[in-house]
Order: sequence, then C-alpha cells, then structure tokens
Amino acid sequence: MTGWLGGLEERARTVLPAPVAEYVAQGARESLTTAAAVGAWREHRFLPHVLRDVTDVDPGVELLGRRSELPWGVAPTTLQRAVHPEGELAMARATHAAGGLVVVSSNAGTPFAEIGETGARWWLQAYLPADRTLAEPMLARARDAGAEAVVLTVDTPVVATKYAAGESVWATVDPGLVRVNFGPDHEGRPGADKATDLGPHDLDWLRETAGLPVVVKGVLRPDDARRCVEAGAAAVWVSNHGGRQLDRAATTAHALPAVAAEVGADAEVYVDGGLRTGLDVLTALALGADAAFLGRPPLWALAEGETGVARLHAELLEETVEALRLAGCRTVADTRGLLATPPVPGA
Amino acid sequence: MTGWLGGLEERARTVLPAPVAEYVAQGARESLTTAAAVGAWREHRFLPHVLRDVTDVDPGVELLGRRSELPWGVAPTTLQRAVHPEGELAMARATHAAGGLVVVSSNAGTPFAEIGETGARWWLQAYLPADRTLAEPMLARARDAGAEAVVLTVDTPVVATKYAAGESVWATVDPGLVRVNFGPDHEGRPGADKATDLGPHDLDWLRETAGLPVVVKGVLRPDDARRCVEAGAAAVWVSNHGGRQLDRAATTAHALPAVAAEVGADAEVYVDGGLRTGLDVLTALALGADAAFLGRPPLWALAEGETGVARLHAELLEETVEALRLAGCRTVADTRGLLATPPVPGA
Amino acid sequence: MTGWLGGLEERARTVLPAPVAEYVAQGARESLTTAAAVGAWREHRFLPHVLRDVTDVDPGVELLGRRSELPWGVAPTTLQRAVHPEGELAMARATHAAGGLVVVSSNAGTPFAEIGETGARWWLQAYLPADRTLAEPMLARARDAGAEAVVLTVDTPVVATKYAAGESVWATVDPGLVRVNFGPDHEGRPGADKATDLGPHDLDWLRETAGLPVVVKGVLRPDDARRCVEAGAAAVWVSNHGGRQLDRAATTAHALPAVAAEVGADAEVYVDGGLRTGLDVLTALALGADAAFLGRPPLWALAEGETGVARLHAELLEETVEALRLAGCRTVADTRGLLATPPVPGA
Amino acid sequence: MTGWLGGLEERARTVLPAPVAEYVAQGARESLTTAAAVGAWREHRFLPHVLRDVTDVDPGVELLGRRSELPWGVAPTTLQRAVHPEGELAMARATHAAGGLVVVSSNAGTPFAEIGETGARWWLQAYLPADRTLAEPMLARARDAGAEAVVLTVDTPVVATKYAAGESVWATVDPGLVRVNFGPDHEGRPGADKATDLGPHDLDWLRETAGLPVVVKGVLRPDDARRCVEAGAAAVWVSNHGGRQLDRAATTAHALPAVAAEVGADAEVYVDGGLRTGLDVLTALALGADAAFLGRPPLWALAEGETGVARLHAELLEETVEALRLAGCRTVADTRGLLATPPVPGA
Ligand SMILES: Cc1cc2nc3c(=O)[nH]c(=O)nc-3n(C[C@H](O)[C@H](O)[C@H](O)COP(=O)(O)O)c2cc1C
Ligand SMILES: Cc1cc2nc3c(=O)[nH]c(=O)nc-3n(C[C@H](O)[C@H](O)[C@H](O)COP(=O)(O)O)c2cc1C
Ligand SMILES: Cc1cc2nc3c(=O)[nH]c(=O)nc-3n(C[C@H](O)[C@H](O)[C@H](O)COP(=O)(O)O)c2cc1C
Ligand SMILES: Cc1cc2nc3c(=O)[nH]c(=O)nc-3n(C[C@H](O)[C@H](O)[C@H](O)COP(=O)(O)O)c2cc1C
Repeated sequence: MTGWLGGLEERARTVLPAPVAEYVAQGARESLTTAAAVGAWREHRFLPHVLRDVTDVDPGVELLGRRSELPWGVAPTTLQRAVHPEGELAMARATHAAGGLVVVSSNAGTPFAEIGETGARWWLQAYLPADRTLAEPMLARARDAGAEAVVLTVDTPVVATKYAAGESVWATVDPGLVRVNFGPDHEGRPGADKATDLGPHDLDWLRETAGLPVVVKGVLRPDDARRCVEAGAAAVWVSNHGGRQLDRAATTAHALPAVAAEVGADAEVYVDGGLRTGLDVLTALALGADAAFLGRPPLWALAEGETGVARLHAELLEETVEALRLAGCRTVADTRGLLATPPVPGA
Repeated sequence: MTGWLGGLEERARTVLPAPVAEYVAQGARESLTTAAAVGAWREHRFLPHVLRDVTDVDPGVELLGRRSELPWGVAPTTLQRAVHPEGELAMARATHAAGGLVVVSSNAGTPFAEIGETGARWWLQAYLPADRTLAEPMLARARDAGAEAVVLTVDTPVVATKYAAGESVWATVDPGLVRVNFGPDHEGRPGADKATDLGPHDLDWLRETAGLPVVVKGVLRPDDARRCVEAGAAAVWVSNHGGRQLDRAATTAHALPAVAAEVGADAEVYVDGGLRTGLDVLTALALGADAAFLGRPPLWALAEGETGVARLHAELLEETVEALRLAGCRTVADTRGLLATPPVPGA
Repeated sequence: MTGWLGGLEERARTVLPAPVAEYVAQGARESLTTAAAVGAWREHRFLPHVLRDVTDVDPGVELLGRRSELPWGVAPTTLQRAVHPEGELAMARATHAAGGLVVVSSNAGTPFAEIGETGARWWLQAYLPADRTLAEPMLARARDAGAEAVVLTVDTPVVATKYAAGESVWATVDPGLVRVNFGPDHEGRPGADKATDLGPHDLDWLRETAGLPVVVKGVLRPDDARRCVEAGAAAVWVSNHGGRQLDRAATTAHALPAVAAEVGADAEVYVDGGLRTGLDVLTALALGADAAFLGRPPLWALAEGETGVARLHAELLEETVEALRLAGCRTVADTRGLLATPPVPGA
Repeated sequence: MTGWLGGLEERARTVLPAPVAEYVAQGARESLTTAAAVGAWREHRFLPHVLRDVTDVDPGVELLGRRSELPWGVAPTTLQRAVHPEGELAMARATHAAGGLVVVSSNAGTPFAEIGETGARWWLQAYLPADRTLAEPMLARARDAGAEAVVLTVDTPVVATKYAAGESVWATVDPGLVRVNFGPDHEGRPGADKATDLGPHDLDWLRETAGLPVVVKGVLRPDDARRCVEAGAAAVWVSNHGGRQLDRAATTAHALPAVAAEVGADAEVYVDGGLRTGLDVLTALALGADAAFLGRPPLWALAEGETGVARLHAELLEETVEALRLAGCRTVADTRGLLATPPVPGA
C-alpha cells in the first residue's frame, strides 16, 4: 500500500498510449542513471529534531525573488500534449493554483501566449541553436508572454541514443504537438540544430537577448557550477536530464551536495531527477537545494488531467508538511543538517 | 529452525484479527524505517573475549536507581487489550515475575489503578496535549497508582500517515479498549490534541507536575539528547517509534552510539526498535545502551497470554546469558567494545 | 562446474545419515557466522606478482619447529567415527601420507594410542574441566601416544544452542563413538563439566602438566592474543569454532589481520573457518596466518574414507601450488601483501 | 532493449559450436574474476562537463608513436579460426578498415605472413618458452611480416585450471587451427614449454631479439609496472587475462588507476577485461588508460564474420563519440577527472 502518489506511474500506464508511456519512462542507453535516480534519494536517512515548536510550518521558498508556496516546481518536458490534450495549459493552471511554478519546454506544443494567459508563473526552458540568432524570436515571444526567467539546458549538445522498447513515439505522435513556438520554416534552416559549442559567454548573450535572468540546467560538477555563476547565472540546476542524456552520469542526489557547497552562497541551486515523494523533496532540501523540480511525476499526473496535477501538488504538499513537522523543521532552511551520513545503499 | 522466539510473529498472526496484526506490524508511509530496524542490529559482529571467568554472569541493570533483572523493559504500546483481553495486566504480571519493568501507554485500555494493583514496577508513557493542564489528572492518577517515572514521547507532534493494508484497526476495535485513563469528555475539549509546540521547558513542568523523574522517548540526535539532559531528563530513549512516525528516520542501531557518547556519562540511555533476540540486546548494550526496550515482541507474545509474555522474557534471558558467557562478559558493563567495526551491511 | 572439491559437501550428504550431515553443517542459533565464513575469504582479491621465477614453489610451512608439507592442518572435530568407521585413524593416515598434521579432538572416538600407532604427526585438542586435575590422565595418555602439542579450545565455556533441523545426532549415535579417552566414570564426576573460569594461568598449568607446547584455539581479538602470548602460548589460533559457538561472532577472515599484526612476530598464528579452496588458503596466508586449519572439508572427505581425505589434500595442494605460481609467490612468506584492499563485499 | 552490441554474445552463442562458445566465455576455477569484470566498469559514474565546445571530437589515440583512429585495439585471442574460418584475417581487415590495431596471438591459426599481407597494423603477442632461443624463429617471422611491437604475456607461467562445462574445445577443434607459426617439431622439443622463470631481463632480450618495442601484458601491480618500465618496456598492459589465469585476481578496473599513477608519465598504459560498451571505454580512459583492448567482444563479432567485426568497431565508435560529447570531452586527454568517486557497487 503506498497511497495515491505511489500508484501514479502505474495508473498513467493504463491511460497513455504505449509509445508515450515508454517515451516518458525511458533513459539513455542502458538506463543505469534513470534506474538509480529514485533509489538515490531513498538511501538517505533522517535524524529528526525533537522538542521544537512545529505548530506553524512553512514549506514555501523564494525563487529568483518571488515566493513559491511549493518547494518544488514542474520541470520542462516535451510532449505534454501527447500525454493530455490540455497539455501545458492544464499543467500551468493546476500548478499556479497550488502557488507553484512551471518551466515550459521550448519544445512545448502550446503557444507561449496561451500559457501566459493562464496567469501562471512560468519560466522558459531553451536549447540554443548553432546559429544563436535563430533563437531570438522564440525568446521574445516567451518574454512577451510573461516568462520570468530562461532556463538554458546545457546537457544536450547532442540527443543521446535510447533503445526504445516498441514503436518510437515520434512515429506515432502528431507533429503539431511539438515545437509550436518556432516559425514554420525554423527546423530546416542552416544553424537550427542544437549548438554543440555552448560556452559561458552564451549566458551573457542569453540574459541580454531575453532580458531575463538565466538559470543553467544540467550541471553536475562544482567547477562548472562556479563557471556558470561567474558568467552571471542566477541559479544552477543540478540535473542529468532524468538519465536521458549521458548514461552512467552520477545521480543528482550524489552530485548535489558538492555543487551546493561550491555556489550555494552566491546563486540559487535547484535539483531534479527521481524525486517522487515528500520525503524525497525533504532530502533534496536537506542536501542543499533551494528547490526541487519534478519531471515525470507531473506528466503521469497530467494523464489524469488538470485535477491529476492539482492532486499531485496537494498530496506532495501534505506529505512535505507532515515530514517537516515530524523532522522538527519549521522552514526549508531548518532542513540543513537533517541527514545521517553516510547514506545506506540499497535501503 | 529458529526456536520459539523466531516463530513469535508468525504464531501471533494466526491468532490475531487481521486489522490488529496489521496495526502491530505497520510503519509510517513506505515503512522503510520499520523494515530496516531488525537488520540493523544483525549487521553487527562480535569480537568475543576469551579466558575470562564467566561462571557467574549478571544480566541485570540499574534503571533510575532500582534494579531490573532484565536488561530490557516492555515499551509502551497502544491496544494491548485488542491483542489479548488481559492486555496491560497480563503484560505487567508476566514482566514483573521476570523481575522486569513495563512502560504503560497513556492510550492504555486498562485503568492505571488496576496496573498498580498487580504490584508490577511500571512507568507511565505520556503525550502532552496542547493545553498542558489537561494532562494533570492522568499524571496524578498514574503517580497514585505507583508509576515510578514518566516517559515523554517527543517524536509525535502529529501522527504520521500509514498506508494500511485492509481495514483499519480503528474501524473494528472496541473504543473502550483505548485511553481509559482520561475523563470521558477529554477528547472533545479544546487543547486536548497532541501538543505541536513541545520544548525543553516542558520537561521541567512535567517533572514537577508529575513529581516523577522524566525520561524523553524518541531522540535520535546527540544535540537533542544534550538539550534533554540540560533540561533535567533522567534518561534519554533513542527511538524512532518503531518506524511509525518519520519514515526514513535513521535506525536506532545507527543513531545510538553518538547519543550514548554525548550523554551516557550524565544520564541513562535506552534504545528500542527492531530488537528481537538476545544477540540484538547484547548488541544494543555493546553500542552504549543502559537498557533496551521491546515494542512488538511483547505484543506478539501477549497474543499467547500472560504465559506467552513470561516465556518471551525467559527465552530472551536464557539467550542473553548464554551470549554474555560466550562473549566473555560477566556484566552489561563488560559489553562495551565488544563489536567489530564497521558493521557488515546485508549480513 | 567446480571440480571434485566443489562437490565435497554435496557428495557427503548423499552418504551420511541426515543427523550426522546436519551435525557437521550446523552453526549456533541462526548460523549467521557459519553462513558468512566461506564468503568472507572469497571477497578478497589478489594483486599477483609477475616476472618472478616460480619454477620451484614450496607450499610447506614450519609448525612449532617441524615442517609440514601442507600449509594447512586438520582441525579437531568430534564424531569422526560417525562419519566413517575408520574415523580418526583414516584421517590421521591420509594426512600423514600427505606430509600434514592432524589435531585430534578430546572428544575423539579413537584411543590416542591407536592414533599414535599410525605414526602420524598429531596434536591433542583439549577442553579443561572445572576440576583441572580430572584432565591429567587424558593429557598423559595423549603425550604418551606422541601428541606434539596441546590445543586449548577457549571459545566454549558453555556449548552454544543450536536449532537442529530434524533429529539430533546425539539421539542416534552410538555413545561408544565419543570421548573414549576418558575413564568410564569421568562424565559423572563432580568438576567434570567444562570449566567456565579459564584464565591465562591455565596455559601455564597446561604446558607444565602436559609437558607440551600450548596452542590457544578460539581467539578473535588482538588483546586476547597478546594475553595468550604473554601467558606462554606457542601459537594463537584464530577461530570462531566454525560458527558453532557465539553466533554473529566476526568472521575469522575479518579478525585475522589484527591478530597477526599484534602477535605474529612473537608466536605462530593459525586460522580456521570457511576455508574451502586453495585460493582461500592463499588468502589466509596472505592475511598473515602461518597455517590454515580445515574443519568440515576433511569430515566431508572422510565420508569417502581414507582415500577421500587423501584426495582432499592432493587436490588442495595442486590448487595451492598453481595459485602460488600464478600469484608469483615461491613460498608462503611471499604471499604477504598480495591482496588488494579493501575486499569486495558480496563478490 | 540494448542495441546490437548488447546482443553480441547471445547471437554468437547461436552460431558457435558449444565447446567454442564455452572456450570463449570461460574463466579460471570458479570464474569469480571473469564474472566481476564487466560490472567493475559499470559501477563507475561520470560527472560530465558542460558549456564546452564539442563540435569536433577526436576519439583517436597515439599508440607507440602511430595514430589509431580507435581508442581501443583487438586483444590477442587463440582459436579465432575456430570462431570463423577467416579468423585472424577477417579480424585484421575489419579492424584495419576502422583505423585500428590488432594484437595477434602467438597461438594464431593464420600464418603471420598472411596477416601482414592484409596491410593491417598489427602487434605480435608472445609467450616465451623455457629455452628462449626456441622463440627466435617465430619472432623473426612476425617482424618480417610487419609486426610493429611484441606483447609479452607475463601472467601465464602455467595455464590455469578451468572447470569446463561439457566437452573441451581441445577435443573437438582441428589442431591445424592453432599455433601454425611454429615449426612442426616445436611442441615436442625440450625447453618448448612456457617459461616459469621470466624476469625483467627477458624484456631486454626480447626487445633486442625481436628488434621491436616490448609491451608487457598481464600487470596488475604498480610495483611490477615500475619494474617493467625500468627494464625498458614501452607500455604496460593491465590485464588479468580475462579472468582466465589467477581466479580472484583483482578486476582491471580496480587495478588500473594505481598502475597509471605509477608509470603513466613514463610509458603507455593499456587495459583490458570486461570492456563491452563505449561507456566502458570512456571509463577506462578516464581511469588513466591510454587505450583499451577487447578480447571476447571481437571474437563474438567475428562469429558474424568480417562485417561483424566492422560493425563492432563502428557501433563502439559511434557510442564513444556520443559519450565524449555528452561528457564535454573533445579528446581522450580530456577524460581524466571525469569520474565521481567512489564507484557505486552493484549499480
Ligand atoms: C518525457 C520527458 C521529456 C523531457 N523533455 C525535456 C525538455 O524538453 N527540456 C529539458 O530541458 N528537459 C527535458 N526533460 C528533462 C526534465 O526536465 C528533468 O530534467 C527530468 O525529467 C527530471 O527527472 P525526473 O523525471 O525523474 O523527475 C524531459 C524529461 C522527460 C521525462
Ligand atoms: C502497536 C504499537 C503501538 C505503539 N504505541 C505506542 C504508544 O502508545 N506510545 C509510544 O510512546 N510508543 C508507542 N509505540 C512505539 C513503541 O513504544 C516502541 O517505540 C517501538 O514499538 C519499538 O520498536 P519495536 O516494535 O520494533 O520493538 C507503539 C508501537 C507499536 C508497534
Ligand atoms: C562437526 C564439528 C565438530 C567439531 N568439534 C570440535 C571439537 O571437538 N573441538 C574443537 O576445538 N573444535 C571443534 N570443531 C570446530 C573445528 O575445530 C573448527 O574450528 C571449525 O570447524 C572450522 O571451521 P570449518 O568447519 O568451516 O573449517 C568442530 C567443528 C565441526 C564442524
Ligand atoms: C578465448 C580467449 C583466448 C585468449 N587467448 C589469449 C592468448 O592467446 N594470448 C594472450 O595473451 N591472451 C589471450 N587471451 C586474453 C585476452 O588477450 C584478454 O586479456 C582478455 O580476453 C580480455 O578480457 P575480455 O575478454 O573481457 O575483453 C584470451 C582470451 C580469450 C577470451
């Protein structure tokens, strides 16, 4: 028995077309990194505080200067409209209602303007093309539609090979559900491919071009985190892309502490990958994250529509607040130092 | 083949109604902490002493100034009368006959006065309500009935969520089997809920109000243990509530040594959680506990009535004495330094 | 496929009466220590030397001043005559023919004089009774029959509880197969029980009474090893009695290095427990043992009679010599430093 | 789903005669070292670099002064002609076409001259006989046929025992498929057996006699690596012979870093054993190898003929280049420092 959250993926699999379910689940190559992600959080053990007043508990966080009621956000994911017709809109509405934040993939199947009209707080996730100028229209559209930050994904100079079980989602899905925020002729143009030569200078260019703070997504090393912060990043997002890029990349649970130690005083630090429960979120916060992000769980919840996403946030919040109380923490800041070391492998 | 003790839970399951058996077994959320408890003791390995005179072996301990023939006591558990009609009385009688000590839950289904009449040595376990004064009648009743100490459980500002398999025990059990030591109108009164704002000052209040030494149950951190001792606790009880409160709390086998190192010289240190055999008890003592407490095993034994509990103590004692001899220890004090480090995971 | 040695236990089980097979296999209580013994050697990994002349390889060792062609001996075991009618005699003959040494249990079912007549090199294993003088006739008989040393087993102040599967061997076995080297009225006499008050002074007494060097069997701690050497022990034998005494005692593979480091320069150090292959023997030597001892394997081999024991020694020797060559070691002394650290759990 | 590479062994097993498949797969004794080899690479986790220009990636390496397009070579294996009639020739041609290097076993079933005629780059692997002069004709033939180096295998003073499942390959295979580069009367001559007295001086002799640089294959210890380099070795090859010699030898993944640290600045360092994927190769390079070698995978691929070997190189190269890009490495030199420590056992 594991409650509503515990049944999320299984229920989604009964609803989603097999290629879509497989697309959501898959990792790169042998999926070792994807397979290890969930367990890496579960290996950590708490040393709860007692005899502390936990009558009022505040799970909220400040993200780039604005409060989020949730200590997590929705990570950017492609093909939300293949998961549910209302796609990004349902995701944005339900998350906004919960006081949270969505990051919208540049591959989104919903026009940015429509997302903006929901009133939701959102950030744009972007890949930069070889010819940077080709990204300018999309960035302008996002800013005009109210995006408050741009998240540059840096772990994808090329898209990693997946060994798909069964038919590929790309063979079955309506092309109109992807990348609707580019001009119609974008794909074919020279220089439209993902850039393979991203460097720290691109952060500068992006911040100025988009006129928005820049978050760097896909960092696993402290030295890279430092380079990002020196190049003006407002936040560093520890991620291995859900195990969908370099297989055998370290788990984010393993990589997070060193990154937080290196730049946590100078920039915000986020983390995603394998977070499934309130206890996972508590662990991520305790390991130094300012916020967590969730990729697959909101997709699975979205298979149940806007109410699914709403319930996801509600259940997670209830679990997180209970966990904070039982851990003797009133705020996210109180969670530092909560973990027994070392983690317990296989636990 | 594992002897009478090894078959305890299985035999109880054949006797107990399913909701009661499930209630006894359950842990919070995914039960990771409950599941890890037993194994955490079994991972430890002994380096026995040889060429020592073990003709006379004394397994007894001094607990708050009075001798216990057993180096363990019975931890407080709710619903003993749902396990067996004689409930707390059978538990008290059998334990007393063995020279031991029971801790009676404030949720007990037996009036304290009746427990006192058995002549057994007992301590009261208490939760404090939001309005502390509401606890006064119960504390007075307990002291009048001979309770020698009060054990304040501090790991339960809220009751953790459990994912029960099947029907909940609360839907099936006679309400008259719980919390009979409160006035009839207690539950509904404002301020009767568990306090969420316990602090060290409550120890003072409790010691004075109850006129009894205070033991703090549910401590996992050395810093909290120190705070308790500074606030006047006579003993610190390392416990994660049998895994029934914060899931993924550290095992007590893991937490005990640091707590014992921090306060062992200034207060007594107890431990519970997953102790099932004489070798587990020996391990707990070797890790620095002054005594162990048992929660589920006495409940399972109680399913066989008073004689079940009697046999539990007898078998454990025989096993503990044999283990002390084979380990070259004459007394509990001799057990310190008995363990090979580090423990062997999964062994 | 694992060769003749690998099938030893399985073949013996097809020949031996179930209670005898169970008696040989069993460990104390839950048998955790017995179960871990074999794997503890297999976890070690070699860093073989290369470009060394291994044309001539000498696996032999000097034990208490006399050469053994084998770097192992036969550990003392009770009930050899229940395993095979020729019992200790077959064991002694086959081992002697291989250039090795047997240690004969004081519980042996064969008169010492007959063992002496085989011409085999042998040591007596003794338990001391509460009244030490009762041991004198047995010690005298052993010395007269040519025992070259006496091995005092110190891990058995009481015999540990076993949870036997099926009928106990003691209910089925002919009493004439045990303890024939005591007077007929020995058992019943006051003071004939195993001593529970052994101390270092007993080593002195034993050496003088027996007129033989004393080996102390059952040591797992460096401090105890030092006490033994200071009390005049010629050798210290690291053993947990094959897991048949204190369950959860550390494996001997784990305990050996610290003991060898503590007393290896001042006394001989032996080890037994779970050694099954030539690679295990090589590991024990590399960890600091001057010789290994085997308990169960010679019993299983004895189920095939004297030729079984002969083949055991031959196969092990062939494997050990091959292993020495492949490891670039010409002698046992060369094996120190051969192991990669740390061992690989579960490998 | 694991792609073409992942199915390599399974497909080969459907094609090869059972004794040949078994011969390729087998390890010495209980095969613990063979069994651990593959997993030892998979336990390592990457900390990829980001924001680096990976437009142009060069997986090539310089081996003994000449460029190889592949950062791996084909390790020497006996019985290639039993795997496929074209044996060494198919292996050489396909590898040469991919820009790589083959090492030819001195047991090869194909005359060196024919191998030379393919135009492939190749090195000779040699065992030295007891009478060194008997090796001279073979060495001369190899040099005449264009061998560019001689690889002395030093882990085989004797051939280790294998417990073959089923019929031995030697009972079924045409003797004409082995050792065709020796004179017809070589085998029977005194001194033709493998030398058991190899020493550092043999490297000198070999370099002068063969007139070629000498690579030492089968080194696991830093001290031995240093001795080899001091004796003039141009490269040290970390290998445990695929687990076919000393069972329980350390994995090469474990042994490599210390060897590379000891001699990496003074000689080339290679490694083989259990490398199966591009990510394994990346790990080996990151751990300090200048190149990897593959034993069984090219044999399994050879079961599909020359095109099988060609595809092996192509798939591995594609995977390695993708991995380099995703890891933010432009060259093999960039891979140092890429690994998270410590490795994750069992991952
Ligand atoms: C189906 C799917 C699509 C994704 N698409 C994108 C994307 O378009 N852009 C991006 O930066 N990350 C993408 N990601 C990665 C997520 O943003 C996030 O890093 C990852 O899913 C976190 O791991 P989790 O799924 O275990 O929570 C995708 C992940 C999934 C599962
Ligand atoms: C069925 C059950 C009821 C419990 N009720 C209480 C209680 O009323 N008060 C309390 O402080 N602890 C309670 N506990 C926790 C125990 O006192 C103890 O901490 C725990 O059971 C020890 O772990 P063990 O069951 O593995 O021995 C309960 C435990 C169980 C299993
Ligand atoms: C069947 C059996 C009987 C034994 N009897 C004795 C004994 O009489 N005296 C003694 O000192 N040890 C005795 N031992 C312990 C052995 O001497 C030895 O310590 C142990 O068997 C070593 O472990 P192994 O069986 O894994 O090799 C016995 C062990 C077995 C298995
Ligand atoms: C079937 C087979 C035959 C081999 N024959 C030789 C040989 O003749 N000479 C040699 O030095 N190594 C030989 N080896 C060892 C390989 O060169 C190499 O060290 C090993 O196979 C690497 O491990 P891998 O198979 O896991 O890649 C052989 C290995 C195998 C599997």
